[in-house]
Amino acid sequence: MKRSHQCGALTDAHIGETVTLNGWVQTRRDLGGVLFIDLRDRSGIVQIVFNPAYSGDALQIADRVRSEYVLEVTGTVVKRDAETINPNLPTGEIEVRVTEIEVLNASKTPPFFIEDGVEVDESLRLKYRYLDLRRPEMHQTLKLRSKAAKVFRDFLDGEEFIEVETPILTKSSPEGARDYLVPSRVHEGEFFALPQSPQLYKQLLMVGGLERYYQIARCFRDEDLRADRQPEFTQVDIETSFMQQDDLLPMMERLMVKLFKETIGVELETPFQRITHAEAMDKYGSDKPDLRFGLELIKVSDIVATSGVKVFASVIEKGGEVKVLNAKGCGTWSRKDIDDLGPYAARYGAKGLAWIQVKEGEFKGPIVKFFTPEEIEALKERTGAEEGDLLLFSADNKKVVADVLGALRLKIGRHLGLIDDNTFKFAWVVDFPLLGYDEEQKRYVAEHHPFTRPKDEDLALLDTDPGQVRAQAYDIVLNGYEVGGGSMRIYKREVQEKMFKALNLPPEEVKDKFGYLLDAFEYGTPPHGGIAFGFDRLVMLLAGRTNLRETIAFPKTASATDLLMDAPSEVDHAQLEQLHIRLAPKPVAPKA
Amino acid sequence: MKRSHQCGALTDAHIGETVTLNGWVQTRRDLGGVLFIDLRDRSGIVQIVFNPAYSGDALQIADRVRSEYVLEVTGTVVKRDAETINPNLPTGEIEVRVTEIEVLNASKTPPFFIEDGVEVDESLRLKYRYLDLRRPEMHQTLKLRSKAAKVFRDFLDGEEFIEVETPILTKSSPEGARDYLVPSRVHEGEFFALPQSPQLYKQLLMVGGLERYYQIARCFRDEDLRADRQPEFTQVDIETSFMQQDDLLPMMERLMVKLFKETIGVELETPFQRITHAEAMDKYGSDKPDLRFGLELIKVSDIVATSGVKVFASVIEKGGEVKVLNAKGCGTWSRKDIDDLGPYAARYGAKGLAWIQVKEGEFKGPIVKFFTPEEIEALKERTGAEEGDLLLFSADNKKVVADVLGALRLKIGRHLGLIDDNTFKFAWVVDFPLLGYDEEQKRYVAEHHPFTRPKDEDLALLDTDPGQVRAQAYDIVLNGYEVGGGSMRIYKREVQEKMFKALNLPPEEVKDKFGYLLDAFEYGTPPHGGIAFGFDRLVMLLAGRTNLRETIAFPKTASATDLLMDAPSEVDHAQLEQLHIRLAPKPVAPKA
Repeated sequence: MKRSHQCGALTDAHIGETVTLNGWVQTRRDLGGVLFIDLRDRSGIVQIVFNPAYSGDALQIADRVRSEYVLEVTGTVVKRDAETINPNLPTGEIEVRVTEIEVLNASKTPPFFIEDGVEVDESLRLKYRYLDLRRPEMHQTLKLRSKAAKVFRDFLDGEEFIEVETPILTKSSPEGARDYLVPSRVHEGEFFALPQSPQLYKQLLMVGGLERYYQIARCFRDEDLRADRQPEFTQVDIETSFMQQDDLLPMMERLMVKLFKETIGVELETPFQRITHAEAMDKYGSDKPDLRFGLELIKVSDIVATSGVKVFASVIEKGGEVKVLNAKGCGTWSRKDIDDLGPYAARYGAKGLAWIQVKEGEFKGPIVKFFTPEEIEALKERTGAEEGDLLLFSADNKKVVADVLGALRLKIGRHLGLIDDNTFKFAWVVDFPLLGYDEEQKRYVAEHHPFTRPKDEDLALLDTDPGQVRAQAYDIVLNGYEVGGGSMRIYKREVQEKMFKALNLPPEEVKDKFGYLLDAFEYGTPPHGGIAFGFDRLVMLLAGRTNLRETIAFPKTASATDLLMDAPSEVDHAQLEQLHIRLAPKPVAPKA
Repeated sequence: MKRSHQCGALTDAHIGETVTLNGWVQTRRDLGGVLFIDLRDRSGIVQIVFNPAYSGDALQIADRVRSEYVLEVTGTVVKRDAETINPNLPTGEIEVRVTEIEVLNASKTPPFFIEDGVEVDESLRLKYRYLDLRRPEMHQTLKLRSKAAKVFRDFLDGEEFIEVETPILTKSSPEGARDYLVPSRVHEGEFFALPQSPQLYKQLLMVGGLERYYQIARCFRDEDLRADRQPEFTQVDIETSFMQQDDLLPMMERLMVKLFKETIGVELETPFQRITHAEAMDKYGSDKPDLRFGLELIKVSDIVATSGVKVFASVIEKGGEVKVLNAKGCGTWSRKDIDDLGPYAARYGAKGLAWIQVKEGEFKGPIVKFFTPEEIEALKERTGAEEGDLLLFSADNKKVVADVLGALRLKIGRHLGLIDDNTFKFAWVVDFPLLGYDEEQKRYVAEHHPFTRPKDEDLALLDTDPGQVRAQAYDIVLNGYEVGGGSMRIYKREVQEKMFKALNLPPEEVKDKFGYLLDAFEYGTPPHGGIAFGFDRLVMLLAGRTNLRETIAFPKTASATDLLMDAPSEVDHAQLEQLHIRLAPKPVAPKA
C-alpha cells in the first residue's frame, strides 16, 4: 500500500478506482454495524466506509480507532446513495469502501476539537499549537503566507533583485527600540544584538554595488508587546540604487497588484492614491488613514475662535485648534449614546467632547447657546451639517485633536456601515516630516531614521528651520494599517553632516554607532533608497484576520512567551559561566 | 537624464542610440586630452569617452573624477575603431561618446583595487566588505546564491511543499552543540536560545498535519570555529509525512538535478550511488567519501596477523585492523618523499606509517623482510600491487585506520591527478549507525539525534545490542563534502521509549528537554522524515570556491567577529540591568 491520492482531491472522476489514502480521523459514526469515518488530510476530508459486506478484518480494526488516529486505508471509490450526498463537502458525492486498513498511529483525546470556529482559549491553542495547526483555517493561512512569500520573490526576481541574507548576530542598531542581546563566549564582556531590521546592511549592499536587493528578513524588537506586535517579525526588505521615489513607488504598486491577484484573486486599481502626511493628519487625523470612507475632519478654529465657548478660544490662543467630525445621520442619537463617546475619546487624550445635533432644522445641544447666528451659519456651511447630523468637536493641541477625531472617525465610520470589508484601499502617505522635536531630550530626533533624505527643495531649511523639513519618506497604508514604509537615503557626506548637526548628536556617539557606515559613504555611495513591507500584517489582511498570531506558525504571547516549548526558560549555571555573565541578584522587597 | 541601459548590456545593436548610464569609475586614462573611462555597474563594464570634439563641459568635469566615483552620463553608442576593439570585454566592440555628465558622488582612494584576483588580506576585505562586494566575482557568487535559493523554492513549491518560518527566539535544543543564548527582559533570569536547527519545529509541523514543509532557515551554533564553519549558517530544511526513505531520496535527487542544471548548467546523472555507512568507512575511510576516484582501502589483517611485523600482530590481537592503500605509481618515490607522508598521517592519529614499494618486480622496504614469501604473494594478490606501486599500511583501531588512510587517499588521489574538478559526484551514504558508545559518559549517544528511526529489521536489537542498530538516516555527499543529511523519525511512542532507554537518559532530562514533543507524539503523529541541506556549502561548491566566507555577504571571522560592524561589542550597563544580568568579574591572574 502506498498513498495514491489526497483525501480532498477525490471526485466523481475517481469512481471505480482503487485508492490508498493517508489521514487523520475527523469523526466516526457507527450506523447499525456500518462504520463511517471522515478521513482528513491537508487537502480536505473524504468519507470512508467499513461494511461487513466488503471490509472483512478492516472493520474490526477500524472499530477501535478514535478521533485523530492516523490511518492508511485502501478501498474503492463509489458514488454515494442519492440521499447521503453531502453538498457541503467537495468530496460529498463519493465515498471510499475500505478493504484494507493500517493504523499508523493512535491518539489521545485532543484537548479541543480540530475544527474551524470552535471556541477555544488562545493559550490552550498555543500550548497545543501542533493540534491547532490541523484546523483547516490555520492550514489555509500558512499556505497563503507561503504563497505570498513566493509572489514577492517571483516579482522581485523578475525585476532582477538579488536576494541576500544579512546577519542575525550583529551590532546594536540605531532604530531606537530595545535590542535583544546575545552574549559572546569568545569575546568576554561583549554582546551581539539581533537586528531590528537589516537597514544598515542593505545600505551597505548598495554601497557594495548590488543595485537591487531584497530579503524576507526576520527582525527583532524587545518592545512592550501589544496585540499586534511580536518580538520577532518578518519584513520584506527592499533596497535599490539609482532609482528615485517616483520610480520605486509605481514598481511597488505593481508588486502589490500581483500579490493581491495571485493570492486572493483581488484586482487592485493603480496608481494608488498619494496623500501627503500633512493632508492625512489634517483630513483623517492619522498617518495611516483608512480611505475606504470619507468623514473628513473639518477645521473650524477661525469660526469658533471668538465664540462664547471659552475653551475653544483658549485652546486656539495657546496655538491649538478646533476641528469637527460630522457624524452624518447620528443627529438622532440619544444623549446617552453621545455621552458614551466621551470615555472612548478620553482614551485618545480628549478632556471633553462638545457636540451639536441638527434636529428639526436647528442646531441643538449644550454649546449652541454660545454661538452667534452668524457663527452657526458659518459652521453649517463649513461642515455641511444637515438635518440628522451630529457634529463632534475636539479642541486641543494638534496631536490630541488628530488622535481623538481620528479615532472617532473610525468608530463612527464602522458604526455607520461606511467600511466595506471586502475593499482593499491602498494609499501612499508621502512627505513625512524629517524630524520631530523631542521635548524630553530637548532636541530634534529623526522621524524615520538619521539616513533619510530630505526633500531637495527643503534642504536649505535643515540649517534654519529643521522642524519644517519634509523627507523623501513614504508609508504604504491599506485600510488604515501601515503595511510598509521606506525612504530615499542620504548619500552625500555634506547632507549627512547637516543631518547629524540638526540632530545635535555627540560626535563620539555618531562615530560609535554609525562610524562604519559613514566610512562606507566616503567610497562612492550611489543614490539609493528602499522600502520594507510588514509581511505578517500583509498576510493578516490578505487572510482577513485581525490578529497577527493567526498568521504565524509558532507565535509568542503578549508577554513574549512560547507556550508550546516553554521558552524562555532557565539555563545551567555552567552555560552562563561560559558566556561570562551571571544573573543579577533579585531585588529584595523592602520591609514594611 | 534617467538610466536607460546597464553598462554591461550595450552591444553593436545599440550603435547610434543615445544612452544614459550609471556606474562606478573602474579606470581612467588620459590619452592626449581624450579621456577614456571604464564605467562599471553590476552588469559589467563599458568604455566611455570624453573628447573635446563632442563632450564640451563634460570633459572638464570628467577630468576631476577618480576611481570609484559614481557617475551618471549620457552619450551616443558608437563602434570602436578596429584597432581599439577589446575582445576580452563583452562590450568591447563599442564605446559611448559622452555629452553630459553628473558626478553623483565622489570616492576616496579605496584601500584595495576593485578587481578579481587581486591579493588582499582577507581581514581587510572583510572590514571593507562593501568595497569587496563590488568585485565581479563576489557579485556573481551572491547572484548564484540568490538563484540557488530560487531553484530550491521553485522545486519545492512545485512539489506542494509549504514554506513555514519557525522561531529564532526559542528554547535550548538537543543537538548537542553550544547554544547562543538571549536573556529575557520580561522573564527575569530566563533565556531564549537561538535554534541550532528547526528540527523540533519541523517535526511539530508534521504532527500539525502540514505534510510537506520547507524553509531556508538560519541556524546558530556557538562552536569553536574552523575555516568552514560560521556561527550562523543557512540550511534548506525539509520535512515530509507519509513518505519513506525510498520516496524522499529520489525526490531530492531530482531537486539536485534541477539545482545544478539551472545554476551552473551541469547535468547530473541519477540515480545517485548509494553506499552504506559501513562500506564507505571500509572502502574510503570516510563517511563522506570523494567518489570521483577509486584508490580504495584494502583490509589485510588476515594476511599480516601472523607475520613478523609485531605491531601488526599486536594491533590485531587488541581488536584493531591493518589496511593498505595502494598508491598506484608512487613506487618510484624517494625515501624522503615517502617519509614526508609521516607527519601528515600523524595529524590523523597515525603512530607510524609502514610501506612497501614494488620495484623491479620485487617488494622493497624496511618491513618486507618480516614477511614470508606466501604472505608477500597474498599481499600482492589482495592489493593488486604492480610494478611501480607504493603500499601504505595503517595498523590501529578502526577509527584511526580509517582517518589515516582516508586522508592519505585524498592526498594521493590529488597528487596523482585522479580528481577531476569539473565533475560533480553525488552519493547517498545510508544505514548510519543509530548509536555510538560514548566512553566518557559510559553510555550510548545518538549519532544523528534521539528521534531518528531505527531500521525496521534492526528494531529488536535496540534492546539487546544497541550498538548494532542501523538507522534510517542518510547523508548526501558531493565530492567528499557532506552537503546534507536527514532521517526518517520515530513516530511511535513505544519505539521512542526504547530509544530513550538505550540512551540511558534520566527521565527528568527527557521530560525537560523533549516533554512537549513527547506530548505531541501522543496525538496522532504521522510517519515522517526529512532532510536538511547545508546551503552555504552547496553554494560554495556550485561557485567553485573553497571557503564558505566567499559565499556569504557579511561573514564572520574564525573568531566569530564581524570586522565591518565591529560586533560583538560592549553594551551599556543600563541595557544589562534591564535584562537582569551582569558581567562576571574577570578572573584575576594568579600571583607567581
